[in-house]
Amino acid sequence: MNADYVRSKFLDSHKNVVESLIKNDHDLTENIDTWERDEGGGGKTFAYSEGRFMEKGGINFSDVQGAKLPPSALSERPELTGSPFRAMGVSVVFHPINPHVPTAHANIRFFTAKNQKGENVWWFGGGFDLTPYYPVLEDVVFWHQKAKNLCDSYGKSLYKKFKDQCDQYFYILHRKETRGVGGVFFDDLCIDNFDTTLAFCLEVMATFTESFFTIFEKRKSISYTEKEKAFQQYRRGRYVEFNLVYDRGTHFGLQSGGRTESILMSMPPTANWSYQWTPLPGSKEEELYKNFLKPVDWLDLET
Amino acid sequence: MNADYVRSKFLDSHKNVVESLIKNDHDLTENIDTWERDEGGGGKTFAYSEGRFMEKGGINFSDVQGAKLPPSALSERPELTGSPFRAMGVSVVFHPINPHVPTAHANIRFFTAKNQKGENVWWFGGGFDLTPYYPVLEDVVFWHQKAKNLCDSYGKSLYKKFKDQCDQYFYILHRKETRGVGGVFFDDLCIDNFDTTLAFCLEVMATFTESFFTIFEKRKSISYTEKEKAFQQYRRGRYVEFNLVYDRGTHFGLQSGGRTESILMSMPPTANWSYQWTPLPGSKEEELYKNFLKPVDWLDLET
Repeated sequence: MNADYVRSKFLDSHKNVVESLIKNDHDLTENIDTWERDEGGGGKTFAYSEGRFMEKGGINFSDVQGAKLPPSALSERPELTGSPFRAMGVSVVFHPINPHVPTAHANIRFFTAKNQKGENVWWFGGGFDLTPYYPVLEDVVFWHQKAKNLCDSYGKSLYKKFKDQCDQYFYILHRKETRGVGGVFFDDLCIDNFDTTLAFCLEVMATFTESFFTIFEKRKSISYTEKEKAFQQYRRGRYVEFNLVYDRGTHFGLQSGGRTESILMSMPPTANWSYQWTPLPGSKEEELYKNFLKPVDWLDLET
Repeated sequence: MNADYVRSKFLDSHKNVVESLIKNDHDLTENIDTWERDEGGGGKTFAYSEGRFMEKGGINFSDVQGAKLPPSALSERPELTGSPFRAMGVSVVFHPINPHVPTAHANIRFFTAKNQKGENVWWFGGGFDLTPYYPVLEDVVFWHQKAKNLCDSYGKSLYKKFKDQCDQYFYILHRKETRGVGGVFFDDLCIDNFDTTLAFCLEVMATFTESFFTIFEKRKSISYTEKEKAFQQYRRGRYVEFNLVYDRGTHFGLQSGGRTESILMSMPPTANWSYQWTPLPGSKEEELYKNFLKPVDWLDLET
């Protein structure tokens, strides 16, 4: 285990995503804020807005140390309560302008901590998920097929496990809806050994980027109505609700005294709320609620 | 202690606020949803939008029972962990259209629970607070003077205590700002006895309504620019952050399986986020940050 090696690889991964974004939206220019954190560590934030196709988002790298793991990191590892830690991650959020292009999110992260016996422990986490407004079944199947291909090359049981964990993690309990159509989510991960797990995480970020921009390219020029834009803004309200009420990464950041503007780069540019809004029967909006915002075995649909 | 008597008084209070709102914004018509809750109890929600002066908000009454007090209600009363409870409340949120009229919120609530000895315990809570975008010092002083007058008639130490609690409660830790200019906040309250405490809570709601509509009347017709409207929408993002990340009432509602649409009637109609937005030096927006979004002893300024 070499945390500085993870750092250099995560920094490469951060750079690759920034480059892919700029290649796909020429109106955006690279403008990275490098920041330090009082308690130790720092990061790099590429926050963007007002692209030709992208409305807002960020690609964030952070590498922070602290005297005590915050509660949001302890639910699966109570034995590390009070442990000093180092946490590293790359987080990506894309909020496209066009409601026919889904919002997308990915994250890879690495933790090391000292347990009560003074031993170093480490684990990786991460995943990616897709939040369409006007979903196209073919895109959702493609998204999950890419995720499965990647997982399969590391172990035949992984896709199903990580896909189920993603459906569970991105469930908005108070709405009885999933945030979107999912993808993969994993935590406390070690596949065989350190090198293999790191390689898997780096591939997670690369697969996410490739899959997202494939869908983006197909849908970015579809014309849309004001009503469709309004629906996207209404649904972005759910994105805000999930991130602020449930997301462990957001809570970890805010609880560990992280850099607020980098943590909340995940917020959409705009969000709307409307009391008791419900989609019209038979509408495309109802289709999203009925067929997409729940756990579905997407790859079984094709056969 | 008579919970059904509280219920009837809280219902009157709810009705009075609805009537005041409609008197002040004729474009709104009374449309109250009456709802029931699976675990027991129910409520009445008057959610409104698209008034002449009011953009969105709600006036909510709820009276719910449950088998176990949720964690958000236990921080000051750990001895009631696992206790069956009844919780009643009136909550009000006003999100005006005009950025020169502040957003305002008030709540009164009543809890009864059985402790481990089988005894009934009860307490009241509540308060009101003001969230201006373009604050007028005279209005803020008026708001606090009205709060002080009310508190003084129940005890000379109350205003300072409740004002300080309000500044603490509505502090957005991750932004290092207060949500607005405060008011009063109290929890676990018993002033002398049940009757006096109930009377105080009812006066809290009445004072809030009177004070808010006095300010509303003075500011509702001020012309405003697109830039001012955009600033209001940006600052509404903070309102969302506070309510979803910190607000115990919101967490209590979501954790106790409450009616999501009634709990989240507090959300603004629109909210914006913008990475690293900072006000221009010397601007009115900077004035808000510099002089208002922190605990201030407003009533000492006049002397």
